[in-house]
Amino acid sequence: MREVFQQELQEVQERLVEIATLVEISIENATRAFNESNVSLAEAVIADDDKIDGAAVALDELAINILARQQPVARDLRIVVSALRISASLERMGDMAEHIAQLARYRFPDKVVPRSLRSTFADLGKYDVQIAKKLTELLRTEDMRLAEEIRNDDDQIDALHLSVFDKVLGETWKGAAVDTVDATLASRYHERFADHAVSIAKKVQYLATGDWVSAGL
Amino acid sequence: MREVFQQELQEVQERLVEIATLVEISIENATRAFNESNVSLAEAVIADDDKIDGAAVALDELAINILARQQPVARDLRIVVSALRISASLERMGDMAEHIAQLARYRFPDKVVPRSLRSTFADLGKYDVQIAKKLTELLRTEDMRLAEEIRNDDDQIDALHLSVFDKVLGETWKGAAVDTVDATLASRYHERFADHAVSIAKKVQYLATGDWVSAGL
Repeated sequence: MREVFQQELQEVQERLVEIATLVEISIENATRAFNESNVSLAEAVIADDDKIDGAAVALDELAINILARQQPVARDLRIVVSALRISASLERMGDMAEHIAQLARYRFPDKVVPRSLRSTFADLGKYDVQIAKKLTELLRTEDMRLAEEIRNDDDQIDALHLSVFDKVLGETWKGAAVDTVDATLASRYHERFADHAVSIAKKVQYLATGDWVSAGL
Repeated sequence: MREVFQQELQEVQERLVEIATLVEISIENATRAFNESNVSLAEAVIADDDKIDGAAVALDELAINILARQQPVARDLRIVVSALRISASLERMGDMAEHIAQLARYRFPDKVVPRSLRSTFADLGKYDVQIAKKLTELLRTEDMRLAEEIRNDDDQIDALHLSVFDKVLGETWKGAAVDTVDATLASRYHERFADHAVSIAKKVQYLATGDWVSAGL
């Protein structure tokens, strides 16, 4: 029984890594579509979100199935419950990538943000992609240094997010209202993407240390 | 054992109703603070968010505890897992109320949105409060008509949310960039608040019908 359970936990972990990999591809494509105004890439991201949603639902069914059959307790139970939560966060990360792609599609053939914000959004995209890659690795290897790195990368994202508002609200901002709306939403989506990654990283970290309650496990 | 379990499920339900009631109070106060530029009310909402977070963590601990001790299967298991998810959505609804209150506090003594948008935000606030009240009732009574009503109210919210963008991107918009940013974020927070309520309502509905997978249960 115990051995079967360990195999099933491994299956859960592999599925989480698969979903994280899909999210990683989505955010890479979404931020590229956004920054390069690539409408076909944007549409691919939007279409692929169904795959992420489907994979998350399938994982949830597996996790509930394990709870029903294996009746885990203590740490094992926390692992399965945390998998349900991590899958919900990954699903939301996919949604954020989709939202970024939708902005790229709406504004095509124009770029979403005016010239003065392009390097900031290039950096936001770069950090989101980096965070997504580290998250996949963290879920695969449980190397806790990656959890720390994700938190640090998120600090960079937060600073960039604030700098978008500084620019948009600054005296030199010449954007029309549509530019202001798009920059506001786009920046929020990039920031929320990273927030979900941090929340997953905390869950992985606390699963390792046993401090479940602080991690909402 | 079965009787104890039923008592514990009732306890879970009561706690969900309590958290929903806290969320209801927060969104009432947040939207009032926002529309009337009431900074002390805004600060109360911000301070109260810790209560919602604490209550959600406590409920999660109870649910995990029930999973460990009672080892429920089938529908009973789905109910406990759905409680974990509903608590996560309620916690996010509290965050949205807090974000609305934060905007009111930042802009005090000014109002957050210019005159031309005030009636739209009054309506957004009205529907969010209405949705929150119906959600508490739905969790208390499991009266499925309320779930339908919440979906319909959410359609109103979506239409109002789009009308904010129509105004902000229209030719008569005279707002500064700060007004555009605030209106964009505030509208998004109101809309997300309602989205979470719909997602909870769906879970309650599907728990009743048994179609778990569609509801992400």
